[in-house]
Amino acid sequence: LSLARTGRRPGPSSTREQILAAARRLFAERGYDGASVRAIAREADVDPSLVLQFFGSKAALLGAAVEWPFDPDEQLPKYFADGRRNVGRRLVDAFLRTWDAEGTRDPILTLLGAAMTEPHAAALLREFLRVRLYGPLMERLRSDQPDVRFELVAAQLVGLGMARYVLRFEPLASAPRSDVVEWVGPAVQRYLTGKLG
Amino acid sequence: LSLARTGRRPGPSSTREQILAAARRLFAERGYDGASVRAIAREADVDPSLVLQFFGSKAALLGAAVEWPFDPDEQLPKYFADGRRNVGRRLVDAFLRTWDAEGTRDPILTLLGAAMTEPHAAALLREFLRVRLYGPLMERLRSDQPDVRFELVAAQLVGLGMARYVLRFEPLASAPRSDVVEWVGPAVQRYLTGKLG
Repeated sequence: LSLARTGRRPGPSSTREQILAAARRLFAERGYDGASVRAIAREADVDPSLVLQFFGSKAALLGAAVEWPFDPDEQLPKYFADGRRNVGRRLVDAFLRTWDAEGTRDPILTLLGAAMTEPHAAALLREFLRVRLYGPLMERLRSDQPDVRFELVAAQLVGLGMARYVLRFEPLASAPRSDVVEWVGPAVQRYLTGKLG
Repeated sequence: LSLARTGRRPGPSSTREQILAAARRLFAERGYDGASVRAIAREADVDPSLVLQFFGSKAALLGAAVEWPFDPDEQLPKYFADGRRNVGRRLVDAFLRTWDAEGTRDPILTLLGAAMTEPHAAALLREFLRVRLYGPLMERLRSDQPDVRFELVAAQLVGLGMARYVLRFEPLASAPRSDVVEWVGPAVQRYLTGKLG
């Protein structure tokens, strides 16, 4: 993931990369709603039809810009397989599965690292979470204070990812996924559906 | 905080800075127990007596190397003012007080950011947490699985700090400290003293 204004050198995939670089800039600067496909195409110096040809939709382009490793629209319904009572554990399990696979973990950690020093990267991540995860997840739950609840879950998962994969705390880093799900799942469940106090 | 091998240019405080740079390197490379005051002094090219003159003790030198903004030995007993039942809330409140003050937040965030790309920074942070916070906190609690519990608390607090101060999720970033304590305190309390599953 590169947020620098200078893109990669032209190559076989340079059009796709140009569009992604333009999308990262505009989503971060104007927000998801404020950055039209037309504006992104103009910024990338390509025809707007090419943007949709490469990525299918503006929402999918946002996912590609963040290099998010799974499609939330496809995954989220699975977390509600037995109603809302296990969604905390299922969410933790899904994140651990994603992160335990090194290839899919790295883009998120790169983005998190960039977000620490680069406000545009933080804005891009916020937009992705808001558009692609917040709505689909919290609309199903119908809890009070959905915005705060979602942010508390995101905070918990970011911290878990940092501790297990970046700071590599032991024994947490080497613990079986099923143990971590039992430890952290109930905290996430409370944030999603419990009494917040 | 600089972890680079090349220190600052010599100046009025260059001896202190030389010792800190040497301490950061050796604590990260050898761990706290493996890095003697004598070895740190040798690495900094100063007399060992000067290390203790500047910092008082090896433990205090570790705190200074991490630029930790408060003395854990002084703060931790306060969290147990009414036994172990409110220690989760008190710990969250103390961290938020520290982070809400920008000057004391920055060194920790700088270290976290460095830890994302620099394994030595991650090792330095782990050593600090293990030596200065883990022992004093978990010995008082006498819970089972103290090592996992401590890491889950650290993960939760790291994530809370990232979400509130770096990613700046709203409304979490602007919420009054007392609200955040009510939201996150019970999760930390469970990690410290509750059933882990």
